[in-house]
Amino acid sequence: TQEKKILTLAGDGIGPEVMEQALHVLNWVQENSDLSFSVEKDLVGGASIDANGVPLTKEVIAKAKAADAVLFGSVGGPKWDGIGFDKRPEVGIIGLRKELGLFANLRSAIVFDSLIGASTVKPEVIQGLDLMIVRESTGGVYFGEPRGIETLPDGTRKGVNTEVYTSVEIERIARVAFELARQRQNRVCSVEKCNVMESGLLWKEVVTELHKKEYSDVQLSHMLADNCAMQLVRNPKQFDIILTGNLFGDILSDLAAMLTGSLGMLPSATLGARQANGVIPALYEPIHGSAPDIAGQGKANPLAQILSLAMMLRYSFDQQTISEKVVNACEAVLNQGLRTPDIMSQGMKLVGTADMGKAVLAEL
Amino acid sequence: TQEKKILTLAGDGIGPEVMEQALHVLNWVQENSDLSFSVEKDLVGGASIDANGVPLTKEVIAKAKAADAVLFGSVGGPKWDGIGFDKRPEVGIIGLRKELGLFANLRSAIVFDSLIGASTVKPEVIQGLDLMIVRESTGGVYFGEPRGIETLPDGTRKGVNTEVYTSVEIERIARVAFELARQRQNRVCSVEKCNVMESGLLWKEVVTELHKKEYSDVQLSHMLADNCAMQLVRNPKQFDIILTGNLFGDILSDLAAMLTGSLGMLPSATLGARQANGVIPALYEPIHGSAPDIAGQGKANPLAQILSLAMMLRYSFDQQTISEKVVNACEAVLNQGLRTPDIMSQGMKLVGTADMGKAVLAEL
Ligand SMILES: CC(C)[C@H](C(=O)O)[C@@H](O)C(=O)O
Ligand SMILES: CC(C)[C@H](C(=O)O)[C@@H](O)C(=O)O
Repeated sequence: TQEKKILTLAGDGIGPEVMEQALHVLNWVQENSDLSFSVEKDLVGGASIDANGVPLTKEVIAKAKAADAVLFGSVGGPKWDGIGFDKRPEVGIIGLRKELGLFANLRSAIVFDSLIGASTVKPEVIQGLDLMIVRESTGGVYFGEPRGIETLPDGTRKGVNTEVYTSVEIERIARVAFELARQRQNRVCSVEKCNVMESGLLWKEVVTELHKKEYSDVQLSHMLADNCAMQLVRNPKQFDIILTGNLFGDILSDLAAMLTGSLGMLPSATLGARQANGVIPALYEPIHGSAPDIAGQGKANPLAQILSLAMMLRYSFDQQTISEKVVNACEAVLNQGLRTPDIMSQGMKLVGTADMGKAVLAEL
Repeated sequence: TQEKKILTLAGDGIGPEVMEQALHVLNWVQENSDLSFSVEKDLVGGASIDANGVPLTKEVIAKAKAADAVLFGSVGGPKWDGIGFDKRPEVGIIGLRKELGLFANLRSAIVFDSLIGASTVKPEVIQGLDLMIVRESTGGVYFGEPRGIETLPDGTRKGVNTEVYTSVEIERIARVAFELARQRQNRVCSVEKCNVMESGLLWKEVVTELHKKEYSDVQLSHMLADNCAMQLVRNPKQFDIILTGNLFGDILSDLAAMLTGSLGMLPSATLGARQANGVIPALYEPIHGSAPDIAGQGKANPLAQILSLAMMLRYSFDQQTISEKVVNACEAVLNQGLRTPDIMSQGMKLVGTADMGKAVLAEL
């Protein structure tokens, strides 16, 4: 079979620790299947700043473009605070999304039955929760111009950012949400702030038009972003797919992830449009961040990174069976009672990053 | 004693119903104190659109400016969907904030012990919760220019909004947060998205500078907006005051309110800068919205509106004692077991808007 090119970018903080465990699993996959991967590793974020002076080198962008999929860790940390806005570690991930055209950031909030107690929310509110946030990730205020800080003649400083969405961008991401909905519970809730922002009004209009024209079989509703934050707390199970812009998606997906109590468990995929060669550019990463406070201590939960690998196997390489094996192995170690500190609860067995990774391998 | 001028703007949906109960309480205050009020009522939002064609008339703005305080209900509803962006009901409240210079929107999230069960969050996570969100409310993306929707030559539509904050605006609202913190637990957490937005970077810098110069006795921390949404779910009691911009404040305050399970109980105050005549322009309103789905059914919880009145008595009219009486009366009816549908739980007595209002009066 054809060799698949994977670029791994572990990044900062706990990134390298959890990536190491995911790579062990990837080795296992190679050894126990007829799949073959060429894995290249490189630096991104603060690690790239330290080595190359910039958070995302041209070489890394080129490698990412040439790869069949990118497996990403996480970036950022206090070490690079104040380094200058254009050089901050976060440019690593934001720049990759933009350069690779990864406009569809898919973030599931799933509750693992065995971890239900780890949530601060009552079990009955979240049991069986399985929602997906479809977040636009190459537009909005993340990239809008003009932007920057200027000093006015009187000494006042002024900080500006621009929220901008075109009908083309909105339609493209809405299409992803509607298509995914058909494979799920067939419901999309589109979220904006159209009572305050014209860009949100356009968002709502374009989603409504596309729905009417091509996806009227899907159930569509609209919700204001502030209300959505409330409804996620009140009754998250009302949602199947939440479709939203870059900034609201950033906040609401973190909120939804924390509701599950299993933040250290949640993977995500960011996809682009199919290329002429048939490849869909794709980056897989845990939803959790670089957690600098626990970095280097062997405490981090590697499961979100391993599950990101499982998503990659499924969505980029069409390996449903082997992907499910990896997911099942992760669930099995939870059922054995193994827990990293982030998901620890009474009566369970506390383990570190490496032992959790080993347990997954043992299950496999 | 001097007569105080109050303008009441009940607005739409459940606004008029809950306002009616608050006005009964205001009458009681007049009859049982040496305070005297002149109360004028007017229309705002959809109700004003229906009567005057616009959501906020010049007359209402003038009356609001002349008043010592505005008691506001809520605006909006599906009836006015698609009325045109400039005429939508929400201009009623946003326009008032801007015209009166009400830049400091103070929103408490408090858990009433008797209602702790109404929350979807576990009791131990929220018991005793008392945080305040200090939200900037005359700037940011709500008012930034350029804004609007344009159609490009190729037919693509483009929606634009501008997030803009000046150092003057940031310093002014930060000052409010620091001053309030000194009267509370002395902790401010400033929230922005400085890893993505330059306006957020300026926000962080200005808050940091002001803190260093004038408020170094207050404990200051910084948090990204996405992380703040997570932390509110994970451990809301870590916060005393959250200081943030207009848009993040909108979302995070709704999230915080829903955590308490007592959304129908939460009042808010929006304050301006002290005028030459000594008056601080002020508007008091419940955090909940117009709830069009239950409007006119006598089901709405009037307590947030009554507690907004109590806030007015305290902050605009310096009537701490009588304000506390009103607050205590609200707590007493809860302790009697009376509940409107939004806060109903097993074993409690279900009542409607009017009966809840009467019960508060009876307590008084
Ligand atoms: C690291 C940061 C720039 C990023 C974002 O805001 O998109 C992160 O929060 C995320 O959600 O992936
Ligand atoms: C009605 C709406 C415009 C308003 C806002 O977004 O500010 C409301 O959500 C609020 O929080 O007061």
